[in-house]
Amino acid sequence: MATCKVRFLPEDRAVEVPAGTLIGDAAQQAGIKLHTPCGGQGRCGRCAVVVEEGKVRQPPTHRLTSADLKAGYVLACQAAVESDVRIVVPPQEKIERRLGESKRAERIALPLPYHLSDQPLRKYVLTVTPPSLQDQTDDWARVQREAARRYQLNDLQASLPALRRLGTALREGEWTVTLVVELDSWDRPEGPARLIEVLPGEHLESLWAAAIDIGTTTNVVWLVDLISGEVMAQKADYNGQIARGEDVISRIIYASKPGGLDELQGLVVGTLNGLLEAAAEERSISTDQIYRVAVSGNSTMIHLFAGIPPEAIRRLPFVTTVNNVPPFQAREVGLAIHPEGTVDCLPGVASYVGADITAGVVSSAMCDTGELTLFVDIGTNGEMVLGDCTWLVACACSAGPAFEGAGVVHGMRATAGAIEEVWINQETYEATYRVIGDEKPRGLCGSGLISLLGELYAAGVVDKSGNIDLKLPTDRVRKGKHGAEYVVVPGKESGIGKDIAITAVDIENLMRAKAAIYAGFSVLARSVGLSLAEVGQVFVGGAFGQHINVERAIQIGMLPDMDYDRFHFLGNTSVRGAYVALLSREMRSRIVQVGQMMTYLELSADNSFFDEFSAALFLPHTDESLFPSVTRGVSAEVIGG
Amino acid sequence: MATCKVRFLPEDRAVEVPAGTLIGDAAQQAGIKLHTPCGGQGRCGRCAVVVEEGKVRQPPTHRLTSADLKAGYVLACQAAVESDVRIVVPPQEKIERRLGESKRAERIALPLPYHLSDQPLRKYVLTVTPPSLQDQTDDWARVQREAARRYQLNDLQASLPALRRLGTALREGEWTVTLVVELDSWDRPEGPARLIEVLPGEHLESLWAAAIDIGTTTNVVWLVDLISGEVMAQKADYNGQIARGEDVISRIIYASKPGGLDELQGLVVGTLNGLLEAAAEERSISTDQIYRVAVSGNSTMIHLFAGIPPEAIRRLPFVTTVNNVPPFQAREVGLAIHPEGTVDCLPGVASYVGADITAGVVSSAMCDTGELTLFVDIGTNGEMVLGDCTWLVACACSAGPAFEGAGVVHGMRATAGAIEEVWINQETYEATYRVIGDEKPRGLCGSGLISLLGELYAAGVVDKSGNIDLKLPTDRVRKGKHGAEYVVVPGKESGIGKDIAITAVDIENLMRAKAAIYAGFSVLARSVGLSLAEVGQVFVGGAFGQHINVERAIQIGMLPDMDYDRFHFLGNTSVRGAYVALLSREMRSRIVQVGQMMTYLELSADNSFFDEFSAALFLPHTDESLFPSVTRGVSAEVIGG
Repeated sequence: MATCKVRFLPEDRAVEVPAGTLIGDAAQQAGIKLHTPCGGQGRCGRCAVVVEEGKVRQPPTHRLTSADLKAGYVLACQAAVESDVRIVVPPQEKIERRLGESKRAERIALPLPYHLSDQPLRKYVLTVTPPSLQDQTDDWARVQREAARRYQLNDLQASLPALRRLGTALREGEWTVTLVVELDSWDRPEGPARLIEVLPGEHLESLWAAAIDIGTTTNVVWLVDLISGEVMAQKADYNGQIARGEDVISRIIYASKPGGLDELQGLVVGTLNGLLEAAAEERSISTDQIYRVAVSGNSTMIHLFAGIPPEAIRRLPFVTTVNNVPPFQAREVGLAIHPEGTVDCLPGVASYVGADITAGVVSSAMCDTGELTLFVDIGTNGEMVLGDCTWLVACACSAGPAFEGAGVVHGMRATAGAIEEVWINQETYEATYRVIGDEKPRGLCGSGLISLLGELYAAGVVDKSGNIDLKLPTDRVRKGKHGAEYVVVPGKESGIGKDIAITAVDIENLMRAKAAIYAGFSVLARSVGLSLAEVGQVFVGGAFGQHINVERAIQIGMLPDMDYDRFHFLGNTSVRGAYVALLSREMRSRIVQVGQMMTYLELSADNSFFDEFSAALFLPHTDESLFPSVTRGVSAEVIGG
Repeated sequence: MATCKVRFLPEDRAVEVPAGTLIGDAAQQAGIKLHTPCGGQGRCGRCAVVVEEGKVRQPPTHRLTSADLKAGYVLACQAAVESDVRIVVPPQEKIERRLGESKRAERIALPLPYHLSDQPLRKYVLTVTPPSLQDQTDDWARVQREAARRYQLNDLQASLPALRRLGTALREGEWTVTLVVELDSWDRPEGPARLIEVLPGEHLESLWAAAIDIGTTTNVVWLVDLISGEVMAQKADYNGQIARGEDVISRIIYASKPGGLDELQGLVVGTLNGLLEAAAEERSISTDQIYRVAVSGNSTMIHLFAGIPPEAIRRLPFVTTVNNVPPFQAREVGLAIHPEGTVDCLPGVASYVGADITAGVVSSAMCDTGELTLFVDIGTNGEMVLGDCTWLVACACSAGPAFEGAGVVHGMRATAGAIEEVWINQETYEATYRVIGDEKPRGLCGSGLISLLGELYAAGVVDKSGNIDLKLPTDRVRKGKHGAEYVVVPGKESGIGKDIAITAVDIENLMRAKAAIYAGFSVLARSVGLSLAEVGQVFVGGAFGQHINVERAIQIGMLPDMDYDRFHFLGNTSVRGAYVALLSREMRSRIVQVGQMMTYLELSADNSFFDEFSAALFLPHTDESLFPSVTRGVSAEVIGG
């Protein structure tokens, strides 16, 4: 077997190893320390190195993006040398930052070729002849006359607040003003044009709008300059309503209390206003310069934001008051943009298939593909859509808050201190983990829980039914006050001064959550006479979805078993949908069309759901033939472990 | 000469007198006491009696309405018996009440044949199929679907507040609701229909709206039931802005101070809300049941009500920000009707020819007559219109606040304690007077001042130029600290513990006011090449106009000299205009047409105005030939006195 020279930079140490040697092993020989918290299983991505020269071979991995691969990244624990190579070991901080950054929204590319005329917001500069004793035409008629003459803006309509400022603006601007006009909206496609603001003088330098996603947990604002169409600032924060309930049902219940709806409305608007102000500050503008927003979110969030009682959403037969909220003015909800600016809430389809999904389907281009596609947005609810450019069928199932870190003893949201990935040594049953931020672990977030459950199963700590094997030769499994449990972090390592463990009850909750989602997939597919195996690609949306380790999610039977490269993690498809709706009337009406072409399957009305749910209450599933790779994966890992 | 038997009831005393004897003289013979504060000059109307049987003859008088004449009323001091007669002497209180009541709005007759469909407000009762798992259509789409099917209400648009109540209303009403809908408005004549409110169950019993007049001094609300079209309550109160300035100019100045506009807006809305609440209480409804208002008023009042800065109105070249305010929602100004109810401000023509005039022209039917008509609304400003059904020319002149009782030492508004009519004995120069309410006199209101000036001139206390003759043999004329003055009420009779007098400066102010108005008439007529003598009828609008003694107003040269029966005192034509606009789209657009057909003459831009004004600064006028009856009247009275 040929010998290869492996040179490590920046230390500039070299070793000679047989071809086929893993870079990690070569590094060890060279005395280079690489981090492998997952035990060299290719799962944590912490041993990534850059191949600057030479040839290596590595199996596919989800820990490296195609950009990473292009840049020469390989996983040292997985990649074998095939020639002389020069390897750069990046500083560990850099790896961490890279991993960290993948969780932040990158610079948003324009999702479509953009022209200002694709959307209805405009600025017009007008110079009018000043009034005289010979022409005492009132200010507003004077402006209307000139707007019609110069810009064919006929029948321009003014809000009272715009009229209140008109006289001063005309005189301050010495009879030149900039009109901010909304030409049309979906509920008045032929106009009339609406005057939002009148500014003294000429102000054509920018035209601000914002795309908003109101998640049950996280709210996101993208500040958009409609001159270029570019996202100029991105802000995210937790929905201020969280303190009044973790999931939509508890929010709906809270809203039905006296004053509850107003309070929840104020809380979410407060959060959004903070984000709008931060985004405006980043671009050194005032929030009053933002004239339009498109808002996406699930139906309950949209109801609460608009101050519409959501009560019927949680009661049989689960209907919303309105799926298609008419555009209204920002002042009507106290949103901190221009008070007369338009708030366009994107249309949903049903109580549990909201604008976040219709917008997600459009922004993911699922509705434009010929390939059978499964779209899923996993959050507190799992919403899913199956179809292609000709048909769409959607359903929603309550996964419960387990994946959001709630309803689990040591669950937490994906904030600093949360364990987001776990590896369990299959011989010692010891756990290693990755924590968000530079902190001691304080609990497990959703992706950490999925990772943990997958590892527990792979290591044989839990069986197919999710029962913890108390007979294993390790202190990590024990009987606690909530029944059997596995200790992920001993108290001395944790940031909470006590053990971080997962209990039998937690596991049961997680299995119900993953079973609900998988059952949703199954019922969806069955409803149209297809099997999940026929699905060509899976789009995973939602901020949480972005962080799921797909192998683990398949391993526990939450996502269908298929080649990893068929999964596409799209991040926040909901805010992206709001963004495209802001940029384009056509895309805005595409969202409506998608809503119309979407058949909604009410799972409560579907007898097969419970059967599918029960069958999915195993790891990975009662029917193991549905998860061939899981069986393979477990044994392969045992061999390689 | 024949002898006539005159029998007086209820005392049942009879006397025999020669034919041609005045009833008053016969009464004296019979020992019946009649009140004649004017000294038997036929001017006070207090000696009115009813002729039940027999024939009498009396000259025309303005103290008796045609209804009075029909009922048999004559003035005892003017009417001569021509046969045996039976006379009823009404109790003095009844006379006073009758005179008093003529100052209050009577029951308002429907101004036009009314059909609900003439105006855009509607109620519709809808019963929808409840949602089910098989039909999860959202509440709003469900209502829209049924409204379109049942009432052809396509494209119904909902406000956010209506949507907020929709779900609860549907469920409380057990899927039957009453929709309150505005089908259209002048700025969207083809709709779409707008949902204002949704009420649980069936509520077709009434449909409330209100007509509002915002006068500089007095605000008026008429509550209207649109089912019948009838005015169901009338309320009036002083405009709360009075404390911030008596006339429009001082209000505009106040509005330009920091916070001034908001304050004035709040004050007038406060007054209107009090009136709306009082009217609603009278009909035992809540103000939230009033879904629409039409608002009339001068341009400054409309600007202040809508919160639009009126500054440009008082500055060259005197333009408004908007003559034609688009309809807005009551919540936008805080008006106490349904918050989503429409506020329709009627259109004006210019800074000083506002909606009160266009509405007045329409409600007076001036614009429908073939007769050359002069319409005048005398208040702080005198606004006047000349024309007929084919053309209209309008102007406004600042009369100043003298006729409103301001700018005059002992002037006051027409409230209790105000002298509203004066008679001066042409031999003794003693004054008698009528006071509003059962109080001691505290000052003189506008009609009292006109009456006083006329009497002073008729008695020779003042000359043509308005100079007081200090040489007269009476203590009533004297030199006071403001120059020459005439004592109307000695301190011991007055309610203020001191003399009530009119000074040379007061007289000058009054003469300027009356000259401005008459000059306006003259310029208007001249602008179209006509003389005032060609005017067929004069419509006097405005609450103040209602109380003017036409003889006195002609005597001082304020109104043109013509037969009294050509004057029609129409009361508040402005609120009546708002009322007809509420009842009829056609009348509403008639107001717009009137505005468009009206040529506005800016007097500041008219050189002839000052000449006319100077010529009118005499009693009655420099050119006495314009006032032939005044000369006649003075000598006749001297003969009869």
